[in-house]
Amino acid sequence: MAAALTCSATELGQRLAGATNSTAAAYYICSLFDEVQNKFTDATYAIDTTYLLFSSYLVFAMQLGFAMLCAGSVRAKNTMNIMLTNVLDAAAGGLFYYLFGYAFAFGEPSNGFIGRHFFGMNDFPMEGNDYSHFMYQWAFAIAAAGITSGSIAERTQFVAYLIYSSFLTGFVYPVVSHWFWSTNGWASAFNTTNLLFGSGVIDFAGSGVVHLVGGVAGLWGALIEGPRIGRFDHAGRSVTLRGHSATLVVLGTFLLWFGWYGFNPGSFLQILKPYNTGTYYGQWSAVGRTAVTTTLAGCTAALTTLFGKRLMSGHWNVTDVCNGLLGGFAAITAGCAVVEPWAAIICGFVAAWVLIGFNKLAEKLKYDDPLEAAQLHGGCGAWGIIFTALFARKAFVNEVYAEGRPYGLFMGGGGKLLAAHIIQILVIFGWVSATMGPLFYGLNRLKLLRISAEDEMAGMDQTRHGGFAYVYHDDDDQATKHGFMMRKVEPTNNNESPPIV
Amino acid sequence: MAAALTCSATELGQRLAGATNSTAAAYYICSLFDEVQNKFTDATYAIDTTYLLFSSYLVFAMQLGFAMLCAGSVRAKNTMNIMLTNVLDAAAGGLFYYLFGYAFAFGEPSNGFIGRHFFGMNDFPMEGNDYSHFMYQWAFAIAAAGITSGSIAERTQFVAYLIYSSFLTGFVYPVVSHWFWSTNGWASAFNTTNLLFGSGVIDFAGSGVVHLVGGVAGLWGALIEGPRIGRFDHAGRSVTLRGHSATLVVLGTFLLWFGWYGFNPGSFLQILKPYNTGTYYGQWSAVGRTAVTTTLAGCTAALTTLFGKRLMSGHWNVTDVCNGLLGGFAAITAGCAVVEPWAAIICGFVAAWVLIGFNKLAEKLKYDDPLEAAQLHGGCGAWGIIFTALFARKAFVNEVYAEGRPYGLFMGGGGKLLAAHIIQILVIFGWVSATMGPLFYGLNRLKLLRISAEDEMAGMDQTRHGGFAYVYHDDDDQATKHGFMMRKVEPTNNNESPPIV
Amino acid sequence: MAAALTCSATELGQRLAGATNSTAAAYYICSLFDEVQNKFTDATYAIDTTYLLFSSYLVFAMQLGFAMLCAGSVRAKNTMNIMLTNVLDAAAGGLFYYLFGYAFAFGEPSNGFIGRHFFGMNDFPMEGNDYSHFMYQWAFAIAAAGITSGSIAERTQFVAYLIYSSFLTGFVYPVVSHWFWSTNGWASAFNTTNLLFGSGVIDFAGSGVVHLVGGVAGLWGALIEGPRIGRFDHAGRSVTLRGHSATLVVLGTFLLWFGWYGFNPGSFLQILKPYNTGTYYGQWSAVGRTAVTTTLAGCTAALTTLFGKRLMSGHWNVTDVCNGLLGGFAAITAGCAVVEPWAAIICGFVAAWVLIGFNKLAEKLKYDDPLEAAQLHGGCGAWGIIFTALFARKAFVNEVYAEGRPYGLFMGGGGKLLAAHIIQILVIFGWVSATMGPLFYGLNRLKLLRISAEDEMAGMDQTRHGGFAYVYHDDDDQATKHGFMMRKVEPTNNNESPPIV
Repeated sequence: MAAALTCSATELGQRLAGATNSTAAAYYICSLFDEVQNKFTDATYAIDTTYLLFSSYLVFAMQLGFAMLCAGSVRAKNTMNIMLTNVLDAAAGGLFYYLFGYAFAFGEPSNGFIGRHFFGMNDFPMEGNDYSHFMYQWAFAIAAAGITSGSIAERTQFVAYLIYSSFLTGFVYPVVSHWFWSTNGWASAFNTTNLLFGSGVIDFAGSGVVHLVGGVAGLWGALIEGPRIGRFDHAGRSVTLRGHSATLVVLGTFLLWFGWYGFNPGSFLQILKPYNTGTYYGQWSAVGRTAVTTTLAGCTAALTTLFGKRLMSGHWNVTDVCNGLLGGFAAITAGCAVVEPWAAIICGFVAAWVLIGFNKLAEKLKYDDPLEAAQLHGGCGAWGIIFTALFARKAFVNEVYAEGRPYGLFMGGGGKLLAAHIIQILVIFGWVSATMGPLFYGLNRLKLLRISAEDEMAGMDQTRHGGFAYVYHDDDDQATKHGFMMRKVEPTNNNESPPIV
Repeated sequence: MAAALTCSATELGQRLAGATNSTAAAYYICSLFDEVQNKFTDATYAIDTTYLLFSSYLVFAMQLGFAMLCAGSVRAKNTMNIMLTNVLDAAAGGLFYYLFGYAFAFGEPSNGFIGRHFFGMNDFPMEGNDYSHFMYQWAFAIAAAGITSGSIAERTQFVAYLIYSSFLTGFVYPVVSHWFWSTNGWASAFNTTNLLFGSGVIDFAGSGVVHLVGGVAGLWGALIEGPRIGRFDHAGRSVTLRGHSATLVVLGTFLLWFGWYGFNPGSFLQILKPYNTGTYYGQWSAVGRTAVTTTLAGCTAALTTLFGKRLMSGHWNVTDVCNGLLGGFAAITAGCAVVEPWAAIICGFVAAWVLIGFNKLAEKLKYDDPLEAAQLHGGCGAWGIIFTALFARKAFVNEVYAEGRPYGLFMGGGGKLLAAHIIQILVIFGWVSATMGPLFYGLNRLKLLRISAEDEMAGMDQTRHGGFAYVYHDDDDQATKHGFMMRKVEPTNNNESPPIV
Repeated sequence: MAAALTCSATELGQRLAGATNSTAAAYYICSLFDEVQNKFTDATYAIDTTYLLFSSYLVFAMQLGFAMLCAGSVRAKNTMNIMLTNVLDAAAGGLFYYLFGYAFAFGEPSNGFIGRHFFGMNDFPMEGNDYSHFMYQWAFAIAAAGITSGSIAERTQFVAYLIYSSFLTGFVYPVVSHWFWSTNGWASAFNTTNLLFGSGVIDFAGSGVVHLVGGVAGLWGALIEGPRIGRFDHAGRSVTLRGHSATLVVLGTFLLWFGWYGFNPGSFLQILKPYNTGTYYGQWSAVGRTAVTTTLAGCTAALTTLFGKRLMSGHWNVTDVCNGLLGGFAAITAGCAVVEPWAAIICGFVAAWVLIGFNKLAEKLKYDDPLEAAQLHGGCGAWGIIFTALFARKAFVNEVYAEGRPYGLFMGGGGKLLAAHIIQILVIFGWVSATMGPLFYGLNRLKLLRISAEDEMAGMDQTRHGGFAYVYHDDDDQATKHGFMMRKVEPTNNNESPPIV
């Protein structure tokens, strides 16, 4: 614990006693206040770091959410495959973000395009670049890769997965986050020298930086690979290839919801920042408001989807509701900190229809995305960027960013923010297309992207991952006793299975 | 970050130099101390909000816990149905609590019966009603609806569910929480003008406000609907309709346990409150003690149930242990902050037998509650209210509530607290019965409550929610190769299934 | 909230006015600074307790992780059994740690071998022994028992489980934690009077105290019981008995990863401790660094295992990757706070090979450990202890422990730390063998340890726990309609099943 603040009345009294000593007295008193200030500095770092680290852990929990959502949304025969990709998003992402990613994103000083310090955490930590910041940004980076893995699920070679995932986490995503979030980024609202349209982009927690990036990457992957076998029948009609476990879908969705409270409110990075010192109102209020807007956008999108899909399909569908909910979250992520709760309801309502619309479109275009990732994270993410430019409130922009910035068009703030945000959508689409598109194309040409039809029919778990994910019954049980008719699923040839499981 | 505290020795020295300047020196020094005080105010809000928000997230995680517990406790054919209700508890609850619920509960100023400010977060935030408080109370509100959904599982129309859930979260529950937790509530221990029996009710985290409310609502729903088909055979004997996944039950129970650390210790709302400034002892200790009492009550109830049920049924039953554990938690929730750890052990021990007893009684009366929700949350919740009135310790009541309040009967505190707590049980039972009873009755008369016998036999997932929750095998796999004998579960008529999943 | 700091300029001015009053003025000013100091003390406790309690909750979540990992790693027929043991680790552990465990571990004053205060939380709390500390240490204690339950899974009598688990949590583990973590422990780096080799053992978060203890206990249990039926065929060849759900394995692994952020960074116990007051660098940085080293060690171990096992077995195995990841975590746990991130990568790389090697050895020796717990927690835990003695960095040891301590051999710190750490491995192996070995041996002699061959073939869920964990289909559904061929799994004899589920 810190050394205690001690004030000696005897010493101070001696100094105050003679007017000649007034300087000494003043120095004594001021040194105590300096000590107090130091203690506040220490306490502030401790509070903000506690806030940021636990937010990081919540964002990390989203990786578990993705894993369960993805697992439940694919067919049982590809469960091990997709879960392995989710584990590796986090694991490979950890190494690559340590080696390169963080440096590209937040290495300072740097130019507007890319960072170039802190490779392998060299010269780390510095003021503003502490380990907790790395943790938080790493958890974000792996989320982008997680989104993409959903789009190309059930038909992608594992090697292709390893390559694109490392490239996305280690380079493509960090560059985008540099543009919009670092103090040097050319479109960053934190840029200290030159603000795009006098504003910079207000993508608070990353509808664009994370969700649109992940969605566009997935779009190219899924487009180049083409749909899964059987997804569209001979007459071109859409055939639903249902995921194997609605329970896992709900589990994953709730975990993502839980983690989003780290993703959105956590993006303040600091909670101890008074807006008007000595009052109840400060950044802690804005943090809470961000949790509220996030919640309301998701809730509204879920309810809109529930009734919308009920009218369209005739039943109440829990997996649709889950996707609608997530679409609402992806949309509110950009503006969560600068809009009113009522605006978040509008955001969520529209997001649900954006998702429904893009899903209809995808079906028409015979685009197959097992997790609806491009539609959800790309489509709703893009809507969220526009939404922010329309509904950002002046007072909140002043507090969270800086005084005098442009704010939402519908709130009387003019069109500058909207202009910046349209630029954001365009450059993200362009950059991700220009990097990930050729990568997927090249992998495809090299026959490294899509698995063989035989493997796809049999499922990747059997052909590449050592067996089926589930074994509800064993040979050594008397099968008839329990009334099961399943036989052992595991490959019986021991040479093919790993010696150690 | 906040502006730094700066003390200029030169300026202060000039002021201290002449005795004639003493007033200026004093003002200078005092203004610095005022600044210090402001910084403490800021830091206190940041710390308390961090504490409250992360507690809210934990409480929210209980909704995931409920979803998994409920899913595992029903038959596979109703899994999607019950999970959808759990998602919608949170989603519809979010909107209704925003529009009405919070206003009814905590809108101030108000009368003793119901609040009437802050509808749709109008005039929000104010001191003591920050966004974090809304988040925390919302997470509580949806828990009550979650409890009720367990009682009426596997046989309730989805429309009925939407109606009662909104009514409960938006009106019935908020009014109860107003009575016992707002500063104007007629029975609140925080009432600043008039305390019931000079005490008010000490229902710290809501054995009554949340668990008894949810349990009584569930009781009426389940009574009016009657038991599931097959729950009692032709001779009237009880037939166990086992849940479909013990794994989900354990997952849900552990998640509820995890979340309960937000529910109980979090109910302090603030952690930075010294009981004796400058010492190691303060509200942070009481918060930790509350985590300990919560833990011990649950652990004891689990062990009691383990051995109790072993004696009665002859085997070691994990789902019974899970329910016992949760009964212990529901019971300690009222008194967790004001009892000693040893008393929590008594609380949990009795709670286990209360649950066993109510379950026996339910069976005798042919009352069918798939989650034992009325028995567990209602029965153990009521016991927890009584327990608190018996074992609340004087010193803790002084610290957590106020000096001079009545405390536990067995601790020498007299009967006033017990009187107040009996009143609490009666008015909650009365209020919930008077509101939810007619609602369920009316829905039943309108044929909106219970599903048809055909739907119940087939399961709601097939008839209302688009298909079975699990698809462990697909047509396009060569089924025989894996030794599976299941056929595709999904409806093959694509018109019936949603176009987008 | 705390009383406000008030400085009256009028009063202070009167005191400053006359030089004769200088003493009064000095007292007045100093009393205000004393108040400021008190407020810092309060704030520090609130911050540190918030940090510690939420870390405790994360560590507790590991118990859920263990439960899911264990469930997924055993065959379906023993799922209820192993989940029940995991629930009871926490529940029985709560009671025993309250009654004895905490007292043995941290009861102070005490001797170097065992504590002897605070039985049943008597005289609690005291400075440094607040309830939050109990919560945190309890969550650690139950982790050790959880490790052991994995080693002896699928063949151990439930009664044996109850006995060893209580003994381990209530006595064996607390004594070890006393030695290495209490201020009186004979080998503790916090020992205030006498440091082993002038250093004490730097087992920051318990590679030895928790993981090696759990692993060695499991080793003896599994050795004495022998392998599961069918684990080695008639010719002595290894046969993989696959776990029944890879999904649960991944779920459990991610939850353990999530919880490890409470386990390792949380072990600082306090986050508000400046290393150089008034700067950005303090214990909060070290806490963040610990999260980073933990992450990198796990990530590297996962990737190493992925490619290592790919070369050895020909496929990409998700459960192996999960185990490798956990091995990396178990290894970094000792040194996480005192090594550089690059060293953590070395730690994880070696840990993966240590696990692979021990698994090969186990197979050779026909040692059967369903969760690889002895290899993983014991083997990688031991490697982590050695690793710390090689790579601990001087500056970090100075900050986290104390100035002038020995540090890592490879970092120029000499061999004293290594000597202490070798002692640690030996005494832990000795102590756990001397206590748990005879216990398991005695239980075996009394026929209380291993279940009968019939029970093992049928599975414990059917024979001891009331039925199979999963019921994916019910009698009352028209089975043919859904295309299922399974029959009801539940025992039809209602007398055998519990009256209440």
